[in-house]
Amino acid sequence: MSQGYTVAVVGATGAVGQKIIEKLIERSFPYSNLKLLASKNSAGKNLEVNGITYIVEEATPDAFEGVDVAFFSAGGSVSKALAKEASSRGAIVIDNTSAFRMDKDTPLVVPEVNKQALHEQTGIIANPNCSTIQMVCALEPIRQHYGLNKVIVSTYQAVSGAGASAINELTVQSEAIKENNPNPEILPVKSAEKHYPIAGNVIPQIDVFDESGYTLEELKMMNETKKIMSIPELSIAATCVRVPVITGHSESVYIEIDQENVTVDELKQLLSSAKGITLQDSPEQQQYPMPYFAANKDDVFVGRIRKDPSNNNGFHMWIVSDNLLKGAALNSIQIAEALIEEGILKEV
Amino acid sequence: MSQGYTVAVVGATGAVGQKIIEKLIERSFPYSNLKLLASKNSAGKNLEVNGITYIVEEATPDAFEGVDVAFFSAGGSVSKALAKEASSRGAIVIDNTSAFRMDKDTPLVVPEVNKQALHEQTGIIANPNCSTIQMVCALEPIRQHYGLNKVIVSTYQAVSGAGASAINELTVQSEAIKENNPNPEILPVKSAEKHYPIAGNVIPQIDVFDESGYTLEELKMMNETKKIMSIPELSIAATCVRVPVITGHSESVYIEIDQENVTVDELKQLLSSAKGITLQDSPEQQQYPMPYFAANKDDVFVGRIRKDPSNNNGFHMWIVSDNLLKGAALNSIQIAEALIEEGILKEV
Repeated sequence: MSQGYTVAVVGATGAVGQKIIEKLIERSFPYSNLKLLASKNSAGKNLEVNGITYIVEEATPDAFEGVDVAFFSAGGSVSKALAKEASSRGAIVIDNTSAFRMDKDTPLVVPEVNKQALHEQTGIIANPNCSTIQMVCALEPIRQHYGLNKVIVSTYQAVSGAGASAINELTVQSEAIKENNPNPEILPVKSAEKHYPIAGNVIPQIDVFDESGYTLEELKMMNETKKIMSIPELSIAATCVRVPVITGHSESVYIEIDQENVTVDELKQLLSSAKGITLQDSPEQQQYPMPYFAANKDDVFVGRIRKDPSNNNGFHMWIVSDNLLKGAALNSIQIAEALIEEGILKEV
Repeated sequence: MSQGYTVAVVGATGAVGQKIIEKLIERSFPYSNLKLLASKNSAGKNLEVNGITYIVEEATPDAFEGVDVAFFSAGGSVSKALAKEASSRGAIVIDNTSAFRMDKDTPLVVPEVNKQALHEQTGIIANPNCSTIQMVCALEPIRQHYGLNKVIVSTYQAVSGAGASAINELTVQSEAIKENNPNPEILPVKSAEKHYPIAGNVIPQIDVFDESGYTLEELKMMNETKKIMSIPELSIAATCVRVPVITGHSESVYIEIDQENVTVDELKQLLSSAKGITLQDSPEQQQYPMPYFAANKDDVFVGRIRKDPSNNNGFHMWIVSDNLLKGAALNSIQIAEALIEEGILKEV
């Protein structure tokens, strides 16, 4: 067996778990041993990875013995039950759920933005919400150069963010809607009382409502952005909306920066050289980001940058990325890669 | 023949023309004579209206002889060529294109907002852009009670706003996209060089781009809102986006009002009694507006009203309406009804 880490993927049969496995291979992550874990229901299934057949094991506390890095993407309740079991056995957990994101002792990391926060880890590192990750990737270079004090974002979020059952619901409904029989069961929130069609519709609810009138998805974007960018005083508000798109979240973002008299061209120049960003912003050539073309790509795509007509410090932009990749699986792997680069994950 | 007006519908075979005819009947508009006009291509077709078969005539200058009210919805070039011909023959033109909207001498009217502007008409009255109409219906009661100084809007616009060919494109593409063969030809702009799929996608371009980086659709929303509400100094910016929905535009709207310490409950109270508005805003019951349920309904639906977390004068809301009804055909008929009420269209 070659030298490398023992890696566990919890939720290996899910939409994000599958992408994590894909990216581990594609990016040649130095693993020597791979443990594919899932719920009792999925245990015993065979999964082929890079030509080798693995048997999915049940995720139990003891399954993490000897694991160096554990990627969790099996829902918040699984992370709450098992992440600390894994870290107490010596694994560094990279958790793709919201379970620990706002926990004071858990770094919430997008490597392009706050890689240094990894040094504060105590066994669990949280991967932010998909809609947050792509936005902070675009906003961080702007904050660094010009300061950032206000963000208003409206999202256009794909159904794959709600898992494989939501993808299936949109696909089946796209047919059923013709007979006016959409029969919604999953969206907007599987456990909620009411379900609404997503085919031919947009739904202004992602996750459940808080008593403030904001949804948890909106509050996640607002709170996580402040934490990742270390701007607790940032003025930020989000409206999160589900649209009938399989993969690729889009965001209409308004920002106000600190510095005066910055031009659109200066912002374009800045973002065109930013890590992980592809600038697609030539209106005269009808070039701008779209989810149909961003799906299965690693980068965050930014375009439609323009000045607010009434505020010299205000800009509007349009940010698109694959919510399963940079929004989830890719960012998780990048966290693990950064742990190696920073010497936090010791060489084996 | 009963007493009533001679009414012409120009573009009678189009999506909006058809809705105008439907609403004329449904609302018992007092017409005694109906002239259905269209391009040379459609002339000679039979259309049944309320049990009577009409032959579509070619829209020519002389076709407007004896017409009292002419509804135009056959594109800007037809309006530019024929609206003045119609008004010079004594008709009052209600034009649903952008041809005269920003013309100084042409009132731009949403009856709930600025009915009084009808008295300044000189033969042509413009019906605003669909995305503008639904927004100003919700904003006007707020402006009247609390003052309004800032608007930032991101739209989720249905394909029917781009006509019957765009509806067909989305329908056909929803099938073709499964074979990864969307073959786009109409959207985002038929005459533009590049076309992009709308099924499974969102497109941040509606109409063509201005050198400012804004699209004409965005500039329409910004300029028309100022004109209709008579707030030339309003700070307003729009991002207009096409989504794969047949009918029903949605809008995520941020506003700042003049008055301090207004509560969400006060705004809800105000809008629940506003004309033409249906408040759908009970998050605890998952009640909020959605295009799937707003299609074929007359009202403008408003919900998800909540305070901005950082600005006591800032509020977010979600506005949905049928873009072919209040956004086009219904508002046109309501203008004609207001012309009668105000005594501008003389009784016959």
